[in-house]
Amino acid sequence: MSLLWTRDAPRWALTIRAATAVLLALTAIMLIRNMVFAQADPSGEATLEADPTVGLTFVWTLLSGALVFFMQAGFAFLGAGLIRAKNTVNYLTKNMLDFAAGGLSFWAFGYAFMFGGSGAFPGLDQGNAFIGYSGFFLVNQAYDVSTAMFWFFQMVFAATTATIVAGAVAERTKVTAYLAYSFLVTALVYPIYGHWMWGGGWLGGEQLESWIGAAAVDFAGSGVVHTIGGMLALAGAYTVGARMGKYGPNGEVRVLKGHNMVYVVIGTFILFFGWFGFNAGSTVNGNDPRIAVIIANTFLAGATGAVTAAYIRLVQRGKISAADTANGSLAGLVAVTAPCAFIAPWAAVVVGAVGAIVMLAGVWFIDTKLKIDDPIGASSVHGVAGVWGLLAVGIFADGTYGVSGFVAGNGVQFVAQLIAAVVAVLWALGTGLLLFHALKATMGLRASPEEEMSGLDMPEHGEETYPVEAS
Amino acid sequence: MSLLWTRDAPRWALTIRAATAVLLALTAIMLIRNMVFAQADPSGEATLEADPTVGLTFVWTLLSGALVFFMQAGFAFLGAGLIRAKNTVNYLTKNMLDFAAGGLSFWAFGYAFMFGGSGAFPGLDQGNAFIGYSGFFLVNQAYDVSTAMFWFFQMVFAATTATIVAGAVAERTKVTAYLAYSFLVTALVYPIYGHWMWGGGWLGGEQLESWIGAAAVDFAGSGVVHTIGGMLALAGAYTVGARMGKYGPNGEVRVLKGHNMVYVVIGTFILFFGWFGFNAGSTVNGNDPRIAVIIANTFLAGATGAVTAAYIRLVQRGKISAADTANGSLAGLVAVTAPCAFIAPWAAVVVGAVGAIVMLAGVWFIDTKLKIDDPIGASSVHGVAGVWGLLAVGIFADGTYGVSGFVAGNGVQFVAQLIAAVVAVLWALGTGLLLFHALKATMGLRASPEEEMSGLDMPEHGEETYPVEAS
Amino acid sequence: MSLLWTRDAPRWALTIRAATAVLLALTAIMLIRNMVFAQADPSGEATLEADPTVGLTFVWTLLSGALVFFMQAGFAFLGAGLIRAKNTVNYLTKNMLDFAAGGLSFWAFGYAFMFGGSGAFPGLDQGNAFIGYSGFFLVNQAYDVSTAMFWFFQMVFAATTATIVAGAVAERTKVTAYLAYSFLVTALVYPIYGHWMWGGGWLGGEQLESWIGAAAVDFAGSGVVHTIGGMLALAGAYTVGARMGKYGPNGEVRVLKGHNMVYVVIGTFILFFGWFGFNAGSTVNGNDPRIAVIIANTFLAGATGAVTAAYIRLVQRGKISAADTANGSLAGLVAVTAPCAFIAPWAAVVVGAVGAIVMLAGVWFIDTKLKIDDPIGASSVHGVAGVWGLLAVGIFADGTYGVSGFVAGNGVQFVAQLIAAVVAVLWALGTGLLLFHALKATMGLRASPEEEMSGLDMPEHGEETYPVEAS
Repeated sequence: MSLLWTRDAPRWALTIRAATAVLLALTAIMLIRNMVFAQADPSGEATLEADPTVGLTFVWTLLSGALVFFMQAGFAFLGAGLIRAKNTVNYLTKNMLDFAAGGLSFWAFGYAFMFGGSGAFPGLDQGNAFIGYSGFFLVNQAYDVSTAMFWFFQMVFAATTATIVAGAVAERTKVTAYLAYSFLVTALVYPIYGHWMWGGGWLGGEQLESWIGAAAVDFAGSGVVHTIGGMLALAGAYTVGARMGKYGPNGEVRVLKGHNMVYVVIGTFILFFGWFGFNAGSTVNGNDPRIAVIIANTFLAGATGAVTAAYIRLVQRGKISAADTANGSLAGLVAVTAPCAFIAPWAAVVVGAVGAIVMLAGVWFIDTKLKIDDPIGASSVHGVAGVWGLLAVGIFADGTYGVSGFVAGNGVQFVAQLIAAVVAVLWALGTGLLLFHALKATMGLRASPEEEMSGLDMPEHGEETYPVEAS
Repeated sequence: MSLLWTRDAPRWALTIRAATAVLLALTAIMLIRNMVFAQADPSGEATLEADPTVGLTFVWTLLSGALVFFMQAGFAFLGAGLIRAKNTVNYLTKNMLDFAAGGLSFWAFGYAFMFGGSGAFPGLDQGNAFIGYSGFFLVNQAYDVSTAMFWFFQMVFAATTATIVAGAVAERTKVTAYLAYSFLVTALVYPIYGHWMWGGGWLGGEQLESWIGAAAVDFAGSGVVHTIGGMLALAGAYTVGARMGKYGPNGEVRVLKGHNMVYVVIGTFILFFGWFGFNAGSTVNGNDPRIAVIIANTFLAGATGAVTAAYIRLVQRGKISAADTANGSLAGLVAVTAPCAFIAPWAAVVVGAVGAIVMLAGVWFIDTKLKIDDPIGASSVHGVAGVWGLLAVGIFADGTYGVSGFVAGNGVQFVAQLIAAVVAVLWALGTGLLLFHALKATMGLRASPEEEMSGLDMPEHGEETYPVEAS
Repeated sequence: MSLLWTRDAPRWALTIRAATAVLLALTAIMLIRNMVFAQADPSGEATLEADPTVGLTFVWTLLSGALVFFMQAGFAFLGAGLIRAKNTVNYLTKNMLDFAAGGLSFWAFGYAFMFGGSGAFPGLDQGNAFIGYSGFFLVNQAYDVSTAMFWFFQMVFAATTATIVAGAVAERTKVTAYLAYSFLVTALVYPIYGHWMWGGGWLGGEQLESWIGAAAVDFAGSGVVHTIGGMLALAGAYTVGARMGKYGPNGEVRVLKGHNMVYVVIGTFILFFGWFGFNAGSTVNGNDPRIAVIIANTFLAGATGAVTAAYIRLVQRGKISAADTANGSLAGLVAVTAPCAFIAPWAAVVVGAVGAIVMLAGVWFIDTKLKIDDPIGASSVHGVAGVWGLLAVGIFADGTYGVSGFVAGNGVQFVAQLIAAVVAVLWALGTGLLLFHALKATMGLRASPEEEMSGLDMPEHGEETYPVEAS
C-alpha cells in the first residue's frame, strides 16, 4: 500500500489520490448533512399513494435500465472481438472500470450537473439553463424512490457514453489515463450537454424555442449519448495517435484484424437486445402504449441497417462482411435513437438504411482520409450515425407523438435539430481534445512502444487473455 | 455498385434486384396511402383511456418479445459451437441476416398474411380461413400501438423459425441462398401455417371445431414455430446434401466435431432464458397470473429434458455428454411450448422427459438411418420434439385453463392436435423441399467443393473467425 | 440401458437408481392425490379478482426470476474462464445439471421444506420453526398461481446456491458425485437454513425476536444464498483436496491460471445484470417503489467493489488485475444483497468497498494460510463477503424501510445479524463436510490422478472443449 501514502508516488497515483481526496471530502460533507427531509419519499409509500399506477413506471424504467446496463457486456464482446488478443485484458478492464468509476462519478456529481434545476423529481430543484447543481450523492431530498429510479436509468446512459470511447482508443492507451477520462466524462462532459438537452437547459428547453420557434428533441440519445460518445472517441483516437503499423511510411492504410468474430456478432446481438430498453425505457413511463411503436421502430432500423450494410458490401465486393453487417445494425440503432418515438415504422426503415450508409462512409473517411485510427469504428457508428439520427427527427417526425418534422409539414424542427447536432459535435470534440491533451500532459496517455509491441495485457495487468499453459 | 445496375450481373444479384424492386414498388404504393385513419391509435392515448390497466400488457408483451429476440444470440452461440471454426463467420452472418431480412419480410408481408382477418387488432381485419391480407407494412389502420406491440412479439417468433434452419444447413450453404430462403419463409411459409393456427384460420378456428368437435391448440408454438422450423431444417439439410466427409463411401456415419463447447452451453442458457418470454409472453396479457404456471412448467420441462438426456447417456455410455444434455434441455423446452399453459407442473416434467427421449431417438434416426446431415440436430430438437409437444396438449391439458385432454377426460382434443401435427409436418416438408429445390435451380444452394474444403468464411465473407495474426 | 437394471451396476448407478426410485414413488403417491381443492387458484382468475393490481407483482417477480436464472450463464462463463481448458466441459456440464437437478429437487422437496408452514401462499400451511413440510411437487393446494410464482423465484435462488460450489471443486471432482451433491443441497441443506430465515423459522421469525428483541433480516440472501453457498464451497474444496500441482512439496502456493479472461469478464457482467433481479425482485411485489433504491444500491455496491479491488491491486502491484476487479464487483454485490433494501445509497458504497476488501483478504487467507484450493475464489467472494453483508444490515439499516441498525440508533439488530451469520457458517460448513465426506465414502468424489492429469473432459464426457480438428 506504500504507493498510496509515499511522497514519491508516480503521477497516476498522485492524480488518483487527489481525486480520491476530493471525493472523500465531499462525501463527508454530504454525510454530515444526510437527513431525510419531509418532501423526499425514500420508502415509496407516499409516491404509491399519490399515484396507485406508478408501480408499473418503476418496474418498466428499472428493467429497461438493467437492459441498458447489460449493453456493457455487448460493448465488451464487440470490442474484444475487433482487437488483437494481446490487448484484450486491457480493453476488458477498461470496460469494467469505466462503468464502475463512471457510475460512481455520475452518482457523486454528474446527475446533479445534468438534472439539477429540472425539477423532474425531488432533490433536483437547483440549476440554470447551463448547468444543474443539486442532487449530489443522492442524499437529502434526493434520497427518494423516484429520484433513485431516474438516477439509475440516466446513470446507465452516462456509462454507455463513457464506454463508447474504449474501443476507439484500444490497443495503445494506458488504463489509468482511461480511468481518469471516464471519471471526468461522466462527471462533467456528458452531463453538461445532457443538461442542455434533457435537464431543462437551453437546447431542449424554452431558450431555443423562444429564439427560433422550436426546442431541440432527442428522444433517447442519438445526440446526448451517441454523438457525444462518438465525437469523444474521435478526439481520443486522434490525440492518442494511431496504433503502430496501422499506417505505413507512405501513408498507406493497413487493416489490423480483430481476433474473434464470434465475440463481434454476439456483442452486437447483446447491444441490439439492450437497445430495446435504451429507447423504449426512455418514456420513463410504464403507462404509455407508444412504447410498442418505439420498439418496433428500433427493431426495424437495426434490421434495415444490417441488411443495407450487408447488401452494399455484397455489391461492392461480392462478399458480405460480418463485421460491417454488425456495424450496420448498430448504426441503424444509433440513428433511430433520437426519432424512435416520433416516427412511423416505414420511416424507421429509411432512417436505419441511411444510418448504415453514412456509417460506412464515415468509417472510410475517418480511416483513410483523416487517418485517425479507430480500431472498432466507434467514431462513425456512434458519432456520424448519431448526427443523422438527430437530423432525422426534423424530417420524419409525423406529429402523432407531439413532434412534427418535414413529413408533417413543419420545417423549423429541422433547424433546431441541426443546431443540436452542431453543438453536440463542437462540445464533444472541443472538451474531448482538451481533456485528452490534459491527460497526455499530466498522467500520460499512451503505453510505451515496447508495451504496445508485446501487448498491453502483461505490462498493465499481469494477466494474459489466453495463457498458453491453461489452453 | 456496378453489379446492381449492370445487365450481366450474376444470378443472385438479379434475384435480389427483383425482390428489391417488388419491395420498393409495394412500399411506394403504401406510402402514398400512408394516412392515419380515425380508428387506429398510433399515440396510444385512446388505448390507455379505453383500458387503464393495458400498460402492463404492453410492458409484459414487449419485454417478453425482447427476450425472444435475445434467443438469436443463443442460436448464434449454440450453432457456432457445434460447427467447425472455418465456417463460423458464414454461420454467424446468416444468423444476423435471417432475423434482419426475416423481420423486414414479416413487417412487409408476413404479418399481414398471418393475422389479416383475425381482427385481433386495428388494421388486421381482412382475410379468410386460408390466408390473411391486411396489415402490410404497418401502415394506415395498422399504424396502431396495439398492432405494433403484437407485430413485434409475432415478428421475433417468425425470426426464430427462420433461424432454426441455419444450423441444419451450416458448413456448406451459400449465404445469398440462405438469405433468399429467410425472406420467403418469413413472408409466406411460416405465416400461412401460422394463420391456420393463430390467425383465425381453419386449424385453430371454427372450421376444425365444426368438423371434429375441437379446434387445434398450440399455446406458444411447438407446432407453429418448432415443428415448422424443424421440418424446414430437415428439408434444407436433405436438399443441400451432407457435408463432405460426413458419410463414408460405404455409408458409415462419421462425427464432425464442433469447435467450442463453451459456446454450446452458453447458447443453451441464453435460449432457456429467452424461452420464458417465448412461452409466458404468449398470453399477450400482463394481467393474467397464469403466467406463473407457464414459467414454472417451462423451467421444469427444460430441466427434466437436461437430466433425462444426461442420464440416458450415462447409462448407455458411462459418460455424460454436455452437447446431448444441452439438446435435451432444448427438446424439453420445445415440447412444453404448446402445452405450457394448459398443464400442471407434474405433467411438464413428463413432457420434458419424453421430449428429450424422442429428440435423442430422432437425432439417431435422421443421422444414421435417413442419413440426412444436420450438424446441430435442429431437425430433431425442434421438429420431432415439436410434434410431441403438439400431441402432449391432447394428453395432459387438465382443464384449468380452458383446454382439456385425456387427463381431464376429453379425447377429441388429441385428434385435433394430431391433425395439426400432421399438417405442420406436411406443410413444412412440402414447401421446404419446393423452396430449397427452387433456390438450388436458380441461385444455387451449395458452396463449391473448394470453398467447403477451405471453409466458407474467406470465399463468402473475406473474414476469418480467428485470424492467426491477431491471436 | 443395461446398467440401469443389472445387479452389478457401479456404485453411482445404484445411488442414482435408489434416488430415482424414491422420486418415482413419491411422484406416484402425489399424482394419485392430484386433485384441485377449492382454495387453490390454478387459473389465476380468483387471484386477479381479489386484487386487480396483482398482475404487476406476477410480471415483476417472474421477470426478476428469469434474470436470476440467467445468472447461470454468468457462473458458467466466469468459472470456465478461470479454469483450464481441459476441464471445461466437465465444469459446464455441472453447471447445466446442478440447476436442472437442483430445480427438480427444489420442486419435489426443497420448496416444501423451506416454505411449508410459512402460510405465504396456498399449499404452504404446514411446518414448524425448524422445517416445513407442505407444498411438495406443487400439487394439490400448491397448484396455485401465486404458489407457482413464488416457487419459481425461490427455485432460481436455490439453483444459484448449488452453482456457487461448482467452481470451488472444479478440475478434480467427478460429475456424478457433484450431481448427487446438487440434489441434496437443494433438497435439504439450503431449504432448512432458508426456512429458518425466510420460511417462518426461528431466525427470521418470532423465536429470535422473543429471545433477543430482534429477528434476523436478510433481504435477498447474503446469508441464505451466498454465505451458505460459499461455505459449502469451502467444505467441498477442503474435502475433495487441492488440485495436483497447486501446492508444492514445501507448501509453496502456485497459481494455476485460467484459460480465458473474456469469459471471466463477460460472466461478471451477466452476473451483475442478473443481480438486479436477484435483489430488487426479492420484494415479490411489483407495487413497491422502493425497488428503485434497491437497484441503485445494488449497482453502487458492485461498482464500488470493482473500483476498490482494482485500486488495491494498483497500489500493491502497480497493475490492475482484471480477475480481481471482476471478483471485487461480485463481492460488492454479494455484500449488498442482505442490506440492499434497508440502506441509503451512500451506505451501499461503503458496503461494496468493504465487501471487496474482505473478499481479497479472504482469498489470500484461504489460499495461502488455510491452503484450501478454491480455483475461482467462490468461498471468499460468496462466503466471506456474504457474512459481511449480513452484518452490514445491523450497521447501516436507516429505518426508512422497516429495519434499523446502528446508523438509526439501534444496536440489537446487529446482534441478530451476528447470530444469523454464525449459524449460517456453522450450518453450511457442518452439513457440507458431512455431505461431501459421505459422498467421498460412497460414490467417490475425486477423479483419478490420470484423469486429472489429462483433464476430466474426455474420461467423464467423451468431449473436448476445443477439438483440434474443428479449430
